[in-house]
Amino acid sequence: MLYSKEFKDKLNEQYQYFKSLNLNLDMSRGKPCPEQLALSNSMLDLVNSQSNFKINEEIDCRNYGLLDGITELKVLFAKMLDVLPTDVLIGGNSSLQMMFDTISCFMTHKIVDGHPWLMQGNIKFLCPVPGYDRHFSILQYFGVEQIAVPMCETGPDMDMVENLVSKDEKIKGIWCIPKYSNPQGVTYSAITVQRFANLKPAAKDFRIFWDNAYAVHDLTDQPERLLSIMDECRKASNEDLPILFCSTSKITFPGAGIAALAASESNLKILKENYFYKTICFDKINQLRHLRFLKNYEGILSHMEKHKKILKPKFEAVEEILNTEFEGEELISWTKPKGGYFISVALPDGCAKRVVFLCREAGVKLTSAGATFPLNCDPHDANIRLAPSYPPVCELLLAMKLFCVCVKLVFVENALR
Amino acid sequence: MLYSKEFKDKLNEQYQYFKSLNLNLDMSRGKPCPEQLALSNSMLDLVNSQSNFKINEEIDCRNYGLLDGITELKVLFAKMLDVLPTDVLIGGNSSLQMMFDTISCFMTHKIVDGHPWLMQGNIKFLCPVPGYDRHFSILQYFGVEQIAVPMCETGPDMDMVENLVSKDEKIKGIWCIPKYSNPQGVTYSAITVQRFANLKPAAKDFRIFWDNAYAVHDLTDQPERLLSIMDECRKASNEDLPILFCSTSKITFPGAGIAALAASESNLKILKENYFYKTICFDKINQLRHLRFLKNYEGILSHMEKHKKILKPKFEAVEEILNTEFEGEELISWTKPKGGYFISVALPDGCAKRVVFLCREAGVKLTSAGATFPLNCDPHDANIRLAPSYPPVCELLLAMKLFCVCVKLVFVENALR
Repeated sequence: MLYSKEFKDKLNEQYQYFKSLNLNLDMSRGKPCPEQLALSNSMLDLVNSQSNFKINEEIDCRNYGLLDGITELKVLFAKMLDVLPTDVLIGGNSSLQMMFDTISCFMTHKIVDGHPWLMQGNIKFLCPVPGYDRHFSILQYFGVEQIAVPMCETGPDMDMVENLVSKDEKIKGIWCIPKYSNPQGVTYSAITVQRFANLKPAAKDFRIFWDNAYAVHDLTDQPERLLSIMDECRKASNEDLPILFCSTSKITFPGAGIAALAASESNLKILKENYFYKTICFDKINQLRHLRFLKNYEGILSHMEKHKKILKPKFEAVEEILNTEFEGEELISWTKPKGGYFISVALPDGCAKRVVFLCREAGVKLTSAGATFPLNCDPHDANIRLAPSYPPVCELLLAMKLFCVCVKLVFVENALR
Repeated sequence: MLYSKEFKDKLNEQYQYFKSLNLNLDMSRGKPCPEQLALSNSMLDLVNSQSNFKINEEIDCRNYGLLDGITELKVLFAKMLDVLPTDVLIGGNSSLQMMFDTISCFMTHKIVDGHPWLMQGNIKFLCPVPGYDRHFSILQYFGVEQIAVPMCETGPDMDMVENLVSKDEKIKGIWCIPKYSNPQGVTYSAITVQRFANLKPAAKDFRIFWDNAYAVHDLTDQPERLLSIMDECRKASNEDLPILFCSTSKITFPGAGIAALAASESNLKILKENYFYKTICFDKINQLRHLRFLKNYEGILSHMEKHKKILKPKFEAVEEILNTEFEGEELISWTKPKGGYFISVALPDGCAKRVVFLCREAGVKLTSAGATFPLNCDPHDANIRLAPSYPPVCELLLAMKLFCVCVKLVFVENALR
């Protein structure tokens, strides 16, 4: 790239042109687009006033009861999470809520002999970075210290994870998005999963929070395979280590899906007790609707093909623009995810906030710089998360053109400083 | 009643006859019957594949967003709870969960300057008795000491409440079911509500848990009126005292309703923060469905007329049998509720468990004796809760006949002992 005053002027001219368009585009969140939502509209017809509301000719889904959810739906979630149906507990509409509630439960109730987390003073969690802001903010809410662990192409830096976890009994957990991670799109390698399953934590109440949010969310015809953490943990006699989460938020409706968790018998005992005191049942009519719509795991996979058809061109558009605009440029790199909802962009130190600011000033909202790090603080100010799912392709092209202009402007500003 | 050996033999004969019928009837829970559920079936058609999913032409209910719920639904819940729409926070399908979550939040996060409840050592709650088992068990789960306060015809014994609350700063809350209380059917008098609103608790973080579960659940054409606790608290500059709860579980579907809470601005700040970290949104499609079905407060009232038509004959049947079988008998008394879901029966000390046992042995399940007291322990073993809503009238008649035989048997057993 030619870092001249003339180039800067030209970029500024382009930037002012974008500003004059009065754009109002949003690439900040992993939000499905209207076309994706429409894929599940017919689900709403499958439980209507004329329906049979009974499960197994016995349980009326309209009434109280069946705290841990419809058995057939457990089977379906078990396939998604690669666990046994008996490992599954179905919840409300939000897997984030199930994660929050699990941590909240462990804060006030002991997991093993000893004290609840809240009574153990300053406890800590490992946080692979960049990662999911909502994971980090739950820890912030409960005052848990967050230790950043770098993400590699095979998952978190496992040398560091093993080392920290085995030495410090104040470390009680780690957040993992093991498939198509947010924001990199990394799927943990088989060796990473095995190393997780064989962890020997100093803390007996250490748990792996395995948020398999993108278990079936492929963007290519070569889905990546994730080893079953539960199988590996059982092989290693470590089955109490992981607690797995997933939902249909990005399969059916983000605002009206079904969430589930999976865990070992002794973990489930604690969590089921928590659920028993918390509620009489979750929304079984929505469970029934989902069961009738998705039917089984194969039903989910064929439904996800339709999502892929909508999302793939959007990710391709973003990648194509980045390729064209930054061919041979070494100051910037980006991930090429085979699934999930994000593209992660790496810039030189100190550039991310400025780029996000310039974009926002010109009407394109990106995820706040730093949001993918604990306490909203990217120590290098270098990571930007792009979320291509929501805007239509034409808007996405415009937003990405602006993004590229802003990145170049920041490069030139820095070079001429 | 004639307490003779002959009478006992006759009763035993009747009891054996009931046993021979192999009954399997359930009067244990306040569970709506299938006819009641059917009243809301058409709600399921109001959001279908062809629907407009947008609220105010802006928010798509299928997608993420709108954490505190649809504004128009807040208006409706505000009318039910007699508060301002801005006081309302809409949740998932369970008000019990909102109560649990509120207590859980206060256990880990301070309400006012000071420490969260969990860090204050042995804290206490006042529990009007007999009361709702699920309220008590939440306290049990969190290890909160429960102090029983007797219920009178005007509500809890307010002399005792005022006295305890003003002296002991370890007392952090009280459970109230202010209208058609579970199990007595008592509606708190205006003076009781005003005395609650004017409490001067020693603990700055004392809260009234005002579970208005039966706000619109009348059984007669003369609905009882409950004074607005929030209005009275505001008059007394005590608006941070109450946290109100309600749901549509017994209006639409127990398994798929909508719950809400209401509180002052400063309480809402704490609870909204909790919700913000917990989830991205609750199920807005179900909210939309409810809004379209119930429309407004008048819509709720006319819908509740239909519930009344189904429930009234059941309560009348129970009362008629009790009247006929126990006319002039002073050992037993029962409530005549004008609303709600229960009839509370008072027996001589030491009789309740035995009656419930005899009924169960003959195939009729009643609420466990003691369940309406903290830690499942009725110190007098004298209270039985009858729940007439679920069984058809013919089964109810049979179950009540058996109940009366069992009560008489226990009376005779005691008299001849």
